Amino acid sequence: MEHETEEHAHAPEARPTSIKPDDTIYVGKKDIMSYVLAVVTQFNRGLSAVKVKARGRAIGRAVDVSQIVKNRFIPSLRLTNFDDATEELQSEDGSMSKVSSLTITMEK
Amino acid sequence: MEHETEEHAHAPEARPTSIKPDDTIYVGKKDIMSYVLAVVTQFNRGLSAVKVKARGRAIGRAVDVSQIVKNRFIPSLRLTNFDDATEELQSEDGSMSKVSSLTITMEK
Repeated sequence: MEHETEEHAHAPEARPTSIKPDDTIYVGKKDIMSYVLAVVTQFNRGLSAVKVKARGRAIGRAVDVSQIVKNRFIPSLRLTNFDDATEELQSEDGSMSKVSSLTITMEK
Repeated sequence: MEHETEEHAHAPEARPTSIKPDDTIYVGKKDIMSYVLAVVTQFNRGLSAVKVKARGRAIGRAVDVSQIVKNRFIPSLRLTNFDDATEELQSEDGSMSKVSSLTITMEK
């Protein structure tokens, strides 16, 4: 999910980017190595950049994923961007609550 | 990463311009607003940059702190650096385990 800041006064449309939505791995509650494998697989498919994104308590796990990919699989990995944002989620009772998100861009 | 501004200003009480270890707020298990208050207090003391650092599961909370400071207290806040790392910690049983850390630098 793109995070538009208020500074984009004249931004009529999204900027073209080399990273498509499919290139983003969403980190949740699954085993951490399944996300690591997903990232490594994307790089092995030929992508030069992959993103991991997480919300709330899973943010620490997204950082774990990037560290494990770098330390064990792709030593040349560079973390080129961190994008943090506040998102509004609807709770089960219908109320809105705010949650932080973090998207880490990795390039090799 | 060091941010030098207005060095040798005319005022005798020139602001501190580099980031010392004391300028880092370590985010753990306390109430989130206590960390937010600590960050805002540091800025109000005249610092131009403050860091928050967290390890493991607390990483998401460090992102929360930066988002709350920005959204509620200091709209002009810029998150100028994210520094992630892997640290080794000694467990209670004496074994070493790895944990991710994230340090967020905020400037206003």
